[in-house]
Amino acid sequence: MPPSPGRERLRGLYVILDPEAAPGRDLIQVAEGALAGGARLLQLRDKLREKGLQLPDAAALARLCREAGVPFIVNDHLDLALAVEADGVHVGQKDLPVPVVRRLAPPGFICGCSSNNVEEARRAEAEGADYVSVGRLFPTSSKADTRPANAETVRMVKAAVSLPVCAIGGISEANIDEVIAAGADMAAVIAAVVAAPDPAEAARRLAARFSNSA
Amino acid sequence: MPPSPGRERLRGLYVILDPEAAPGRDLIQVAEGALAGGARLLQLRDKLREKGLQLPDAAALARLCREAGVPFIVNDHLDLALAVEADGVHVGQKDLPVPVVRRLAPPGFICGCSSNNVEEARRAEAEGADYVSVGRLFPTSSKADTRPANAETVRMVKAAVSLPVCAIGGISEANIDEVIAAGADMAAVIAAVVAAPDPAEAARRLAARFSNSA
Repeated sequence: MPPSPGRERLRGLYVILDPEAAPGRDLIQVAEGALAGGARLLQLRDKLREKGLQLPDAAALARLCREAGVPFIVNDHLDLALAVEADGVHVGQKDLPVPVVRRLAPPGFICGCSSNNVEEARRAEAEGADYVSVGRLFPTSSKADTRPANAETVRMVKAAVSLPVCAIGGISEANIDEVIAAGADMAAVIAAVVAAPDPAEAARRLAARFSNSA
Repeated sequence: MPPSPGRERLRGLYVILDPEAAPGRDLIQVAEGALAGGARLLQLRDKLREKGLQLPDAAALARLCREAGVPFIVNDHLDLALAVEADGVHVGQKDLPVPVVRRLAPPGFICGCSSNNVEEARRAEAEGADYVSVGRLFPTSSKADTRPANAETVRMVKAAVSLPVCAIGGISEANIDEVIAAGADMAAVIAAVVAAPDPAEAARRLAARFSNSA
């Protein structure tokens, strides 16, 4: 399969905006901070609110990301992603399958897929995903019902697929070097940015680790 | 606005298949019973399972309804509806707005919208809904977080809009005559069919009330 156009955009710090991880915070302000700090992708992941209630945030984030030239990805909800002309969707193993997303989404639409091991990552690639995430790498309170993985999993997945690989799960300043060293093209963080005292500064410090490794 | 093609299909017993209301039951068997009993529309409403896990049921229901010549509607999830080529989607006041559904869905796709009063029903009509539901009419355990309405609301909505009107909320054999008398074109039931000892027989008895009133 030829690499998707824009695959070079799938690299660096990937900030997931989950309102549950940022109680009482304005999600748009957090996003502005993350972008100012050097986040290279943003994702909206809201497992609680109805989609109509998420729509204003999703539309604002899509606009913000468009201005910043950064892909905006919606977790799970392809319909919400299409509604705000997001750049893509991220699906888990229990969400709509990658081929269904491909069939319903316009050309160039990014489809990321969660994996926990080489087999799932290979299947995601075969089904047409643009990137795979691998996790969860470290304990996290941001998501329940996750299966453990580790830096060695990242290394094995990276060797098994030609897709960009995104490490996820409990990533922070304390361990991001380890996942970058394992070959992760992207590191997805939630609490490390959205719950940080200063999201922009937190993003800056995390994003800098990619520059240092380049 | 000209009436949608197929609006005459929006009449009669509307059975909502909610796995929470039918624990331990095979949803497809319940659907077969409902259709055999005379249900004129079916809806899948699953607020718990991820969409990938709903996909097999949704695809099977779409097939079943196509064979029966009955519209198959998916609650809330436009992406799931499009994935299985359902006939339509039903959105609540907090779900994706009707105009968004219209923009993303193909021509002829049915869009139903929940309302609780004349104002919401009028807005749904202005925004392009194909039918409005009015509820909840009677106490129900099938759905939390509902606002009360009554037969008089159905009467007022029916007078205010030209759309087919669907009564919903705690409808059973004991009260369906009241909502039909109030002018409801459709009566949506959940527990009264999916939790009935014999769903086909329950649907038959409820559907017969429409014939009697015609």
